[in-house]
Amino acid sequence: MAGLHVRSVLVTGANRGIGLGLVQHFLEMPKLPTWVFAGCRDPKGQRAQELQNLASKHPNLVIVPLEVSDPASIKAAAARVGEQLGGSGLNLLINNAAMLICDTLENETLENMTQVYTTNTVGPLLVGQAFLPLLKKAAQGSPGSALSCSKAAIINVSSNGGSLSSPAGWHLLQGVSYRCSKAALNMLTKCQSLGYREHGILCVALHPGWVQTDMGSSVGHTPPVTVEASVRGMLKVLSSLGEKDAGTLLDWEGKVVPW
Amino acid sequence: MAGLHVRSVLVTGANRGIGLGLVQHFLEMPKLPTWVFAGCRDPKGQRAQELQNLASKHPNLVIVPLEVSDPASIKAAAARVGEQLGGSGLNLLINNAAMLICDTLENETLENMTQVYTTNTVGPLLVGQAFLPLLKKAAQGSPGSALSCSKAAIINVSSNGGSLSSPAGWHLLQGVSYRCSKAALNMLTKCQSLGYREHGILCVALHPGWVQTDMGSSVGHTPPVTVEASVRGMLKVLSSLGEKDAGTLLDWEGKVVPW
Repeated sequence: MAGLHVRSVLVTGANRGIGLGLVQHFLEMPKLPTWVFAGCRDPKGQRAQELQNLASKHPNLVIVPLEVSDPASIKAAAARVGEQLGGSGLNLLINNAAMLICDTLENETLENMTQVYTTNTVGPLLVGQAFLPLLKKAAQGSPGSALSCSKAAIINVSSNGGSLSSPAGWHLLQGVSYRCSKAALNMLTKCQSLGYREHGILCVALHPGWVQTDMGSSVGHTPPVTVEASVRGMLKVLSSLGEKDAGTLLDWEGKVVPW
Repeated sequence: MAGLHVRSVLVTGANRGIGLGLVQHFLEMPKLPTWVFAGCRDPKGQRAQELQNLASKHPNLVIVPLEVSDPASIKAAAARVGEQLGGSGLNLLINNAAMLICDTLENETLENMTQVYTTNTVGPLLVGQAFLPLLKKAAQGSPGSALSCSKAAIINVSSNGGSLSSPAGWHLLQGVSYRCSKAALNMLTKCQSLGYREHGILCVALHPGWVQTDMGSSVGHTPPVTVEASVRGMLKVLSSLGEKDAGTLLDWEGKVVPW
């Protein structure tokens, strides 16, 4: 991770699983970020206990209330982060918050489809919009024109479950709402990469692997990838990302996942 | 169209544009369908005038009230169609109803994203669920095991605007909600093709071209393809579809559109 030097980063859905793992690793980096922002729906709740413990040891960790399906919550989080940064920009936004409902084609509902899409696809769009001024500021404040995660980037945590040409991971007829939302998130990433490039912001989608988290385990089998391996892999990938990767979907080992 | 012999077909969003064109062509086929069901939000409204005129001349055309974003409306439509079929199945379901909002990445909203996704993606899912018993019945009543549109099929009218590898048609930063919904619809088609194959139902997505309709013209340029050319092309494609096409996206000329 010699190439990754992030002065400030926001991770959404940071209270558990991959999000928590990312926060922990950012707090242990040799080139420590000035600020690590951990977005989480209910920072005072029982499920944010590990995040609270971390924050008590690391003064550069700031827990930010953030519900990615609520535009007002997103705006408040952007204001909170902007205030803390005090004039500096945000280098890295990791849209990690997501949900999975293991419905089948037969019992999928309007409510589930909408809820999953709102969290997994609309959330990253709205968070990107709200934090755009801070990302632009980081890009303007970084020397050189080359796109990178150390300069300014949006990373959308997607899935090979949203890949149309290589549907993998679990039985295809489970999680239709999830698969549709991730295919749409890949499209959003493509649009963001084209739209935000002129501002010096790199946008890439990452497949973290099938990981041993609550979500990963909810499909009924034991996932093969540990949180540690996934997060280490993703951070290594982040350190190497550049212009050529804009708008693509890469896995935690850096391999391109076909659409 | 020698190969297409559909005894019954339902077209959603049938009061104008491509939907209306499809209905007109089905009513002029040499092998006339016994029933052509035209789904439309407001059958008595001014915007359904052409459909009403057609129905006054063609006793095999049945206009069915159908709002694809409303589960209750979908269920009522399935009951209405089932009643008319009187024990027979439905051969062909064409999920054509769709909407386009020309928003940009900057001003895209939760409301627009949700509305477009509900109509363009969730609608085809719910309509497919509701008409599944009638499609199964048609498949069971057809001789032979080969999948075809004459036996039982779901055709989702999608778009190359939902293609991640060949984004085309208009400026990428317009219609983000539309693009995301169509990428998700392609994924839904893939899931339906795998889930419904065992029932003898073929599921394919079609890109109708950039067509001279109200929707096609709303992006600010004159589309190159006439409704006539698009509909004729799609019907020719439908007549040739089989097992090998299940879960793919083809354009109105039969060419595979990459994901």
